[in-house]
Amino acid sequence: MALIEKYGHGGDLLTAKQEFSRDSNHLLDFSANINPLGPPARVIGVLKDRLETIVHYPDPAHRMLKQKLAEKHAVSPEHILIGNGAAECIALVLLGLQPQTVGVIYPCFSEYEQLAVSYGAKIKPCCGKLANDFKPNSSELLQLIAETALVFIGHPNNPTGIMYSKEELVRMAEQAENTNTYLVIDEAFIDFHPHQKQATLLSELEKFKHVMIIRSMTKFYAIPGLRLGYAISHPELISKLQGKQVTWSVNQMALVAGEACLEEKEYEGKTIELIQEQRRYVKRSIEENLGWFVFPGQANFLLVRLTDEFTATDLQWKMGQKGILIRSCSMYPGLTNQYFRIAIRTKQENDCLIQAFKEVVKEGRKL
Amino acid sequence: MALIEKYGHGGDLLTAKQEFSRDSNHLLDFSANINPLGPPARVIGVLKDRLETIVHYPDPAHRMLKQKLAEKHAVSPEHILIGNGAAECIALVLLGLQPQTVGVIYPCFSEYEQLAVSYGAKIKPCCGKLANDFKPNSSELLQLIAETALVFIGHPNNPTGIMYSKEELVRMAEQAENTNTYLVIDEAFIDFHPHQKQATLLSELEKFKHVMIIRSMTKFYAIPGLRLGYAISHPELISKLQGKQVTWSVNQMALVAGEACLEEKEYEGKTIELIQEQRRYVKRSIEENLGWFVFPGQANFLLVRLTDEFTATDLQWKMGQKGILIRSCSMYPGLTNQYFRIAIRTKQENDCLIQAFKEVVKEGRKL
Repeated sequence: MALIEKYGHGGDLLTAKQEFSRDSNHLLDFSANINPLGPPARVIGVLKDRLETIVHYPDPAHRMLKQKLAEKHAVSPEHILIGNGAAECIALVLLGLQPQTVGVIYPCFSEYEQLAVSYGAKIKPCCGKLANDFKPNSSELLQLIAETALVFIGHPNNPTGIMYSKEELVRMAEQAENTNTYLVIDEAFIDFHPHQKQATLLSELEKFKHVMIIRSMTKFYAIPGLRLGYAISHPELISKLQGKQVTWSVNQMALVAGEACLEEKEYEGKTIELIQEQRRYVKRSIEENLGWFVFPGQANFLLVRLTDEFTATDLQWKMGQKGILIRSCSMYPGLTNQYFRIAIRTKQENDCLIQAFKEVVKEGRKL
Repeated sequence: MALIEKYGHGGDLLTAKQEFSRDSNHLLDFSANINPLGPPARVIGVLKDRLETIVHYPDPAHRMLKQKLAEKHAVSPEHILIGNGAAECIALVLLGLQPQTVGVIYPCFSEYEQLAVSYGAKIKPCCGKLANDFKPNSSELLQLIAETALVFIGHPNNPTGIMYSKEELVRMAEQAENTNTYLVIDEAFIDFHPHQKQATLLSELEKFKHVMIIRSMTKFYAIPGLRLGYAISHPELISKLQGKQVTWSVNQMALVAGEACLEEKEYEGKTIELIQEQRRYVKRSIEENLGWFVFPGQANFLLVRLTDEFTATDLQWKMGQKGILIRSCSMYPGLTNQYFRIAIRTKQENDCLIQAFKEVVKEGRKL
């Protein structure tokens, strides 16, 4: 059984703290995919300065942040919905569009299935093959779109890190238009990508009335505690989602942080560079030192397959004892207890991770 | 048309700022019912100290706050759901219990109807009579419970401030048990009541499997920007609501503030005393100086009926010009443009309010 995924996700420090009897300050968290630089210092400063505005209700229409995001993405504010985390955007997609069948491509973020089932939809699964790094082929994807009312696609996908080419995305979007299927592209991790503008379908979104892009602001800017995400789509779809959103569901501190984060150009560049470099480094280090198979993902995390006697649960437990949290992937449909996921962090932290992996393997062999 | 209730509620300072061309620091807000003492200073301190914990996900199970609230209310944590504001609790009630018909007692908080309709329920209305201060009589209430799958009751009710006796509540709860109707008692403002423990059905809740109490922490502790509320009920109902809640919907700062607020015994006493005293003072001042009818509400706000040539919209506009926001009640079904609502604030602020009312009336007569 997964140890620290009791509530279905990584990053649950309270459970980890209890499980491994360690203070959460002494845990190094590779189980949640958060920017290792931490929140931009200036953003923390702005939050401190504006803390006393919590005495007022947040703007129910999120006008200022919406305007800033509209400028950033060169769309009008009517194309944007601000959500209480990307997770709320996913929930509102389901509540607002009420699909009867939802297409899900395993392995993927568990909330697609869980929320869809909880709101009454049937799941139509599609499974990527190991031989193709769990990326489904084009004809399978187009068929899934044809056979469902809504399809979720992670781009990059969590936990595999795979992405689709622009041509593949366009073909999927065209299929969605043809078959009246909603195509929801979850780009929660795309901000870490060095060529994100070329990688996303965003600039061509106006051609498609059935396509929606979901973004997160909490992973890249390292503020998951505040909850902030958004959806971009045709105003008609956005207004259907808005109709189901609870008033004031996005809190004031998230709005303040969101506005401040969008000014952080230098931090953005530094993050992207760090993740690119460190992802390569971690992948190579694992392959060379441990011999495990690392999938060629393009996100700020890596999916790894164990190739020796360990299970992911074993490894997670032993790493946890050393104060390092990794994400067991045994809960993901399509994966087994051979798989785990790690976030990419700073050089020093990544070195600790590799060192601890080596120790665990060595200790294991001694037993 | 109501001026600052463009999004259906009071407290929208951004709209007010645009409407009255004033900086929001120069607006005195009687349109939202927030504790005029502001957030406890110690809570602001704790939030500042713990701001950097936003780099982690909030606890998805809200364990620490749930435990503290369980102790406060002498129930087990399984009886409690923590929500992203009381508004999310209301939404989860509807999503989790899926009532086909929802009983609503007008005039009341607009979200009962709006969320119920948005999630597909039919509304069965019941209207209090002016002659009885908009309080429906017992037989009407019992009939409404018998004829619906779920009934929302504000206690005290917003915007009238009326409350029910313990006997009335018990009778409603018994009726709810007999007719398999969910009775949802919204006690978002009950913390301001000096005898809240006697006023609420909470201590008898274990007898009733169909009754739920909703509380807000943001009004009494003056932190509406953070969003925090909770529901107390039978674990079976709570688990139905939990099944529809989006993971991490309650943010980390709200959880931190919630835990800190529960330590604020002195602040609680001071608030209750202030509101009691000032509500009496404001009611008397309006009656004596302006001759308007003030309803005998028991909350931290008052409903007022104009008795002269003004409409609430006129009055709201003229007060807004002076930098004071009041809540027009023309949007509430059951009320007209003769009604407005004001929060109870500090003596000095209440004096400003009364003085401004007097000026508006005097200027009006001169025209």
